[in-house]
Amino acid sequence: MSTATLDVIAIGNAIVDIIGRCDDAFLARHECPKGHMRLVDALTMSALYDSMGPSTEISGGSAANTAVGIASFGGNAGFIGKIADDEFGRIFDHDITAAGVNYQAKRASGGQPTSRSLILVTPDGERTMNTMLGISTELGDAELIPSMIESAKVLYLEGYLFDRPEAKAAFRKAVAIAKSAGREVALSLSDGFCVARHRAEFKELIAEGVDIVFANEVEIISLYETTDFTTAAKQAARDMKLAVLTRGSKGSIVLADGKEVSIPVEPVTKIVDTTGAGDLYAAGFLYGYTQGYGLARAGRLGSIAAAEIISHTGARPLVNLADLHG
Amino acid sequence: MSTATLDVIAIGNAIVDIIGRCDDAFLARHECPKGHMRLVDALTMSALYDSMGPSTEISGGSAANTAVGIASFGGNAGFIGKIADDEFGRIFDHDITAAGVNYQAKRASGGQPTSRSLILVTPDGERTMNTMLGISTELGDAELIPSMIESAKVLYLEGYLFDRPEAKAAFRKAVAIAKSAGREVALSLSDGFCVARHRAEFKELIAEGVDIVFANEVEIISLYETTDFTTAAKQAARDMKLAVLTRGSKGSIVLADGKEVSIPVEPVTKIVDTTGAGDLYAAGFLYGYTQGYGLARAGRLGSIAAAEIISHTGARPLVNLADLHG
Repeated sequence: MSTATLDVIAIGNAIVDIIGRCDDAFLARHECPKGHMRLVDALTMSALYDSMGPSTEISGGSAANTAVGIASFGGNAGFIGKIADDEFGRIFDHDITAAGVNYQAKRASGGQPTSRSLILVTPDGERTMNTMLGISTELGDAELIPSMIESAKVLYLEGYLFDRPEAKAAFRKAVAIAKSAGREVALSLSDGFCVARHRAEFKELIAEGVDIVFANEVEIISLYETTDFTTAAKQAARDMKLAVLTRGSKGSIVLADGKEVSIPVEPVTKIVDTTGAGDLYAAGFLYGYTQGYGLARAGRLGSIAAAEIISHTGARPLVNLADLHG
Repeated sequence: MSTATLDVIAIGNAIVDIIGRCDDAFLARHECPKGHMRLVDALTMSALYDSMGPSTEISGGSAANTAVGIASFGGNAGFIGKIADDEFGRIFDHDITAAGVNYQAKRASGGQPTSRSLILVTPDGERTMNTMLGISTELGDAELIPSMIESAKVLYLEGYLFDRPEAKAAFRKAVAIAKSAGREVALSLSDGFCVARHRAEFKELIAEGVDIVFANEVEIISLYETTDFTTAAKQAARDMKLAVLTRGSKGSIVLADGKEVSIPVEPVTKIVDTTGAGDLYAAGFLYGYTQGYGLARAGRLGSIAAAEIISHTGARPLVNLADLHG
């Protein structure tokens, strides 16, 4: 096994977020499941955009946010995801590159537009996402860069990729490349509904060779079809080599080798927008993990990064995360 | 004179802001005059964008920000400005309409792109702007909507329009329409360098029929080619029917009918980004003025709106300004 030049290579949907504010009644009126991501077509997207208030455009995408977070801690991160040669593609490309992430995608012309997500933030800070996948639906084997995957200590995949058959195939191929190179594989379960859509396959993949699983409470409960976090966590401890379970304001727990490490949340004055909380927790944890820190210290970095991201609008850090931990 | 259905009709460049952070050395390296607006071509824009950090896209434009601020106070505002049928044009159109401003522009296809401004915010909160005018250079007589201008109590024009000959002609025509309808005309001097470029013409226009002039310290000093605010303010009091002079942290003064009204700033915990401070001061003042409030009360609304806008990134209010004043 050659020396890794990247700490983490992340693969996911390359998305620009369109973030606006609304009340719970607006979500209900437009049938947006609060706190979740739903996939929408161009027509629904357009109708929703026309009826929502003023918004702000900020680069996003779950695994992409994680890659940016790792770079912000000072780690070496790469990202693989597909963009079109349009304004949003240029924005995505600029922002992730400017954040110090190794991103080599060519912008594809003439096909579908760059993916976007209408994110509605309610007064409680909770975000509800409406994603139009656009060109991300075309992410396939051709987009994988084997040399980048081989050179990274950890391959990090977002579960959202499972929503398209082509991406699922690319996902499995990326895992095979990483495994052949002797690397570790991490998977984020992404969303409770996403888990419900792909439960059997997620379980299969975890059994086959995922080393680290990131999930929040809703996702892990959905995976094991239970109603109780403790039961789900016990099952996770049996099935997964390393399970990182986040629980919002209740902190997080890391399960590995029969041990359980509890990590408190980092205090926040005001929760402005929870978009990216899980992505940035994963960034902090993976940065610490790939630096060889212990699980508690890695989890603490996750809490620090999540606290920064929920204190402002958008899922990309506004400060150098490296400056936040002593 | 018929009853006005709009409080204010604003005319200006329709711009989407691309806001990022940098240090003073970055500004120096790229020859960006700190605290000012400079016009750049596509090539300079692109080079600057490539070297700057991650950014956020938010609708802007000086007079457009003022229109949005007036609507946020509960006033009836309209806006005239040109956009292209591209992603930034759609963003601009959506945001100003969603903010409650009457905006009737048709998106023009196949020509120049929608205007954009790269705004670099330094750690002191000061903003430095690099604007590519794009399709705004084509704003001319054809874009004016006489019925909207005739129906507004005040026509508000940004001085930035003077940077293009075609817009200058449209500017003069708009003034003539407003005057024939018995309306008042307000002018923002926009930027110290902009004043230096068009000093004689600004003076001429003010003498001919501008009723309200908005200027900051640098702009009014530049207009009268002095180095001293008091001297410039004295001259303004002689030349202008109503002069509204903002002085950053020193508050503002309103000069009218030989009287001077001083208005303190509204306290702010932390100045995050000064983009839009002048635009939102004008919004508060014009909202109060068109509601028939006295000068001191109108100025106080200006201070309240400016305080809100400098406490976060971007030049559009994040709250209903109507909720901020008792």
